[in-house]
Amino acid sequence: IHSKLPDVGTTIFSVMSKLAQEHGAINLSQGFPDFPIDSELANQVSAAMAAGHNQYAPMPGLPALRQALAAKLQASGSPVDAETQITITAGATQALFTAFAALLQPGDEAIVFDPSYDSYVPSIQVQGARAIRIPLRAPEFVIDWQRVAAAVTPHTRMIVINNPGNPSTAVLSADDLTELANLAEQHNLLVLSDEVYEHLVYDEARHHSVLADPRLAPRSLAVFSFGKTFHATGWKIGYCAGAAALMSEFRKVHQYLVFSVNTPAQHALATYLADASHYTSLPAFYQAKRDILRQGLANGPLRLLPCRGTYFQLVDYSALPSHLSELDDADFAIWLTREAGVAAIPLSPFYAERCGHKLIRLCFAKQTATLQAATARLASL
Amino acid sequence: IHSKLPDVGTTIFSVMSKLAQEHGAINLSQGFPDFPIDSELANQVSAAMAAGHNQYAPMPGLPALRQALAAKLQASGSPVDAETQITITAGATQALFTAFAALLQPGDEAIVFDPSYDSYVPSIQVQGARAIRIPLRAPEFVIDWQRVAAAVTPHTRMIVINNPGNPSTAVLSADDLTELANLAEQHNLLVLSDEVYEHLVYDEARHHSVLADPRLAPRSLAVFSFGKTFHATGWKIGYCAGAAALMSEFRKVHQYLVFSVNTPAQHALATYLADASHYTSLPAFYQAKRDILRQGLANGPLRLLPCRGTYFQLVDYSALPSHLSELDDADFAIWLTREAGVAAIPLSPFYAERCGHKLIRLCFAKQTATLQAATARLASL
Ligand SMILES: CSCCC(=O)C(=O)O
Ligand SMILES: CSCCC(=O)C(=O)O
Repeated sequence: IHSKLPDVGTTIFSVMSKLAQEHGAINLSQGFPDFPIDSELANQVSAAMAAGHNQYAPMPGLPALRQALAAKLQASGSPVDAETQITITAGATQALFTAFAALLQPGDEAIVFDPSYDSYVPSIQVQGARAIRIPLRAPEFVIDWQRVAAAVTPHTRMIVINNPGNPSTAVLSADDLTELANLAEQHNLLVLSDEVYEHLVYDEARHHSVLADPRLAPRSLAVFSFGKTFHATGWKIGYCAGAAALMSEFRKVHQYLVFSVNTPAQHALATYLADASHYTSLPAFYQAKRDILRQGLANGPLRLLPCRGTYFQLVDYSALPSHLSELDDADFAIWLTREAGVAAIPLSPFYAERCGHKLIRLCFAKQTATLQAATARLASL
Repeated sequence: IHSKLPDVGTTIFSVMSKLAQEHGAINLSQGFPDFPIDSELANQVSAAMAAGHNQYAPMPGLPALRQALAAKLQASGSPVDAETQITITAGATQALFTAFAALLQPGDEAIVFDPSYDSYVPSIQVQGARAIRIPLRAPEFVIDWQRVAAAVTPHTRMIVINNPGNPSTAVLSADDLTELANLAEQHNLLVLSDEVYEHLVYDEARHHSVLADPRLAPRSLAVFSFGKTFHATGWKIGYCAGAAALMSEFRKVHQYLVFSVNTPAQHALATYLADASHYTSLPAFYQAKRDILRQGLANGPLRLLPCRGTYFQLVDYSALPSHLSELDDADFAIWLTREAGVAAIPLSPFYAERCGHKLIRLCFAKQTATLQAATARLASL
């Protein structure tokens, strides 16, 4: 068999979660909560099943859910038409893959920023397109837009951003979006914006969606996740919103890639979204968790990087004794899982090139007790 | 925008279901049941949510569900390893798309039989591959294997079968599978087998899975649907099973296309599958519905074609008065929805070429009252 993805192994998230389980480690690796979902949301799924909502939803998604999302987006300054500009997907990952499949031709180039979420590059490659990877450097992961401009070629078709960024935790500024819009307009590029952590921004940081930018909106698709927002990553439901002309191409592929998405969950989410406090409460909720983690590590040997968004915290282990600080991040993550009983995600799988940093990512979407147990282990390394 | 699928419009299933709704017609078009799911299955989903099974399932699917499926397949003569040969998918459509994406390179050819389910050809085209379409003729839709052999070129990589066939309702014989195996071995071809109606075979017909054939199994992937089997098409959950080497490529794409599938539904299905009567009862259940439909139409002006499998019945309208029989099937299906109050699916969207037949497809996955109301309308045309 001639592999389409010869270099792809098992995603680092599966590898680390499995290792965590084998060693009974506290799992701060794969990004998912260890606390329960809101029982109100689960009850609404049960009610939808009982009401007989178990057959195909309309291909682009339940109208009531799309309308609820259009209202939510409108309220945050992103005017989007429910009928033509929103499609419900089987999670944000499916939305991303579908956008790549719909918009990239063989030979096209898509610019991505490293550390980039690990689905982007293989999803681009499956389309016969090329990922042009621009590395960003810790601790701030700032984009040098001149460098981006220099990477544009006649084949460049798309720029992929992840805002807030996983695993960088960086949040793009209003100036970043202006630079992006300048570049996209000048070279007629599309923008695919992964905004699954839209609500998880902390301190003074603000989330700027491409959909709220009048210059970017006409050339962008943005991707969102109910799993991340409502603590139900296993439900695999999200959505894509953006320019109608792009959405029309997106739907042509979506229609044959998956057709439609879990109907009872769509009914439940349409109802659940009506109460905006279900998501406006999120920044404070997760900022408190972030701060428990940071305070627990503040006096230990791991150096904390800034955390502006997402539910991840990067830590630098270069101040540990040399037998540990000399390990590369993948080996250190394995050591940490086995010997210290805390599973984390190394950063190198998100970079094309070896970058020699000593960084791992910790997920703080966890109960206080979990965070305290983990910080106790990590602070005494 | 340079479209990847310039010729694709809205799928006929969406078009007809929408028209049915607008005109208050009895909807025998899109293939889904109008009766409730088993409340036991819904209760198991609710129980899984309450038990906290709301985060990512393992990428290839919940082990318990894969083991239950391996046992089911084993019992039907298809030995399959749960660990390496089964992946749970967001419906059979996602499984099909993923198989095409994983196994077809640009320039490859895949042989499909018309009438072919409408996702196959665009899903092949999105990969930059070509669909070579071989038309089969009503009423038996028999495959001429010599003609298939003649269509093989050095670019041919895959043969796609749908068994039982939708919309043909044809069931492949053991001889068909032998011919397929001969051809596949001779030209080193892969086989992608859509078997979502595996349990819906009637009278003397028997379902022969590619997975039960020792020559085909090593070069095949087969696709199945819980939605079709357990009357919950809107749950969008199915699976792919087949040769480990192909499954390994399948999972490389699946991992980045959707990553994983609804966790509570996977838990529920793992439990539900333990009782084999949940699917062994299906042939009798649906054959009774088929026969209600057939008896209701037997003395009317529509000619019944054989129905050997699936939950669809083809009817020929060429004996109707000429103002109707002269309509092409798409126009007749629209007329039938608007004027007779019964929505059906025309056959021509499943063919590459105009074939001039006068056939529409009726779905009989409906309550007795629905079937009786529909046949009353159809018998008096
Ligand atoms: C699809 S598993 C990865 C979950 C996640 O978003 C992360 O850990 O970054
Ligand atoms: C995905 S909508 C089509 C449902 C179906 O399988 C059919 O009607 O043939």
